[in-house]
Amino acid sequence: MPTVRLVIRYDGTHFSGWQRQRGARTVQACIEEAAATLVHAPVIVRAAGRTDAGVHALAQVAAVRVERTIPERGWRLGLTARLPEDISVLDARPVDDAFDPRRASAGKRYRYLLQCTPMRDPLLRDRAWHIHGALDLDRLRREAADLTGTHDFRAFRAADCERDTTVRTLFRVAVVPDFRGETGVVAIEVEGTAFLKNMVRVIVGTLVDVARGRLPEGTVRARLADGDRTRAGITAPPQGLYLDEVWLHPAWLLPDDVLRPRPA
Amino acid sequence: MPTVRLVIRYDGTHFSGWQRQRGARTVQACIEEAAATLVHAPVIVRAAGRTDAGVHALAQVAAVRVERTIPERGWRLGLTARLPEDISVLDARPVDDAFDPRRASAGKRYRYLLQCTPMRDPLLRDRAWHIHGALDLDRLRREAADLTGTHDFRAFRAADCERDTTVRTLFRVAVVPDFRGETGVVAIEVEGTAFLKNMVRVIVGTLVDVARGRLPEGTVRARLADGDRTRAGITAPPQGLYLDEVWLHPAWLLPDDVLRPRPA
Repeated sequence: MPTVRLVIRYDGTHFSGWQRQRGARTVQACIEEAAATLVHAPVIVRAAGRTDAGVHALAQVAAVRVERTIPERGWRLGLTARLPEDISVLDARPVDDAFDPRRASAGKRYRYLLQCTPMRDPLLRDRAWHIHGALDLDRLRREAADLTGTHDFRAFRAADCERDTTVRTLFRVAVVPDFRGETGVVAIEVEGTAFLKNMVRVIVGTLVDVARGRLPEGTVRARLADGDRTRAGITAPPQGLYLDEVWLHPAWLLPDDVLRPRPA
Repeated sequence: MPTVRLVIRYDGTHFSGWQRQRGARTVQACIEEAAATLVHAPVIVRAAGRTDAGVHALAQVAAVRVERTIPERGWRLGLTARLPEDISVLDARPVDDAFDPRRASAGKRYRYLLQCTPMRDPLLRDRAWHIHGALDLDRLRREAADLTGTHDFRAFRAADCERDTTVRTLFRVAVVPDFRGETGVVAIEVEGTAFLKNMVRVIVGTLVDVARGRLPEGTVRARLADGDRTRAGITAPPQGLYLDEVWLHPAWLLPDDVLRPRPA
């Protein structure tokens, strides 16, 4: 069966997340339905990373397995035309049938946007987490530095996360003040091989709780050591989170690809 | 009657514009209703600039006339708490009763965002105008340069605009590529004393039509000369437009004001 690789952007606000669920509006279901009308047959779509309800993706990578394919340009334009306004296909290319977006992924970058201003910003209400008080950015940065490397992240995941192995590697955790020139907007960028359920949101919630003095400095180090979820921070709300980039293992890159290998 | 000066931000997407209209959700009506519950009396609110349906404001200036006032901090927090998520009060201060936001305004800056990428961006769908083809930015800039100065702008307004005097002064029309680091986003910033109905949107539509070759270079100059609306460009859609800043005449500035006089 031919396989088509998609790069997708979506506004997660009005979706119950990526994964198909009965009776819910999900990104996967919308894409499967749109693709099915394009090829006149049922379609299954898989993604590199499942996103939760309210979480956005700037460049999610997905694979569509279909019984017959159509010209390359038709996938990008035809699929986008059949998708609702909150999903768009940035790129679509035929790929080897063995392509599995999760296994082909060499890592991902997530970005989380905080809005640290006295008053909430109506234009960012579905795009960032509004923090009322001031954040100590030096404290935030010092705490974030303890996250990089290979650790057991079981204190930094959803209570219902069912993975047995909770050891993960983060390459980089960066704090960017005045992100894109917007006063008071702070981006936290997290890069790693793979992530546990809600891992970025619990990391951000913990860093924010330390930066606003609700948790002591050294919390990250202590939780990586004892694995106690109940003593880590809150789960940051979904609307500030963006799946920003998926890197592919070099063997899976296509000629003149829009996707990249993991930066060194 | 005491007067309170407000600085307001709103997401215009779900409003039928600023001005109160029977049966429509408007920014003015929302603020008047919220303020009325705060002071337990009917309230009238006026703004420096009326915005159309779908148009956003980063810092609209308004005046509330009330029979009795409440402490300063109460206005900002109390009013925001009573307003829907798509409006926020950034600043609220008592001001002389003679304050009229329209007459106190020394000028305004509007910003218009274009998204010039092959595929539409779901995260910008209510925030920018998606232009499918490429724009010639040099052509756009050359054409924009003809707008500054004092001209008769009657070719650049809504068909139903009822103003008798159509002479206006623009201080600056700037084209900013990759606005705030976002590839493909172009900002057009327009600064002037006062504006006709839809004036910025007709200006942007005309500049875009010239930049994509649908209208010849020199269209702005020709329309300023002949005043023929039918030969100017289209009216750009509302979702790309932001009322960015209102400048006050120096006599109306308050101590340590968040608002500014017009930049030299």
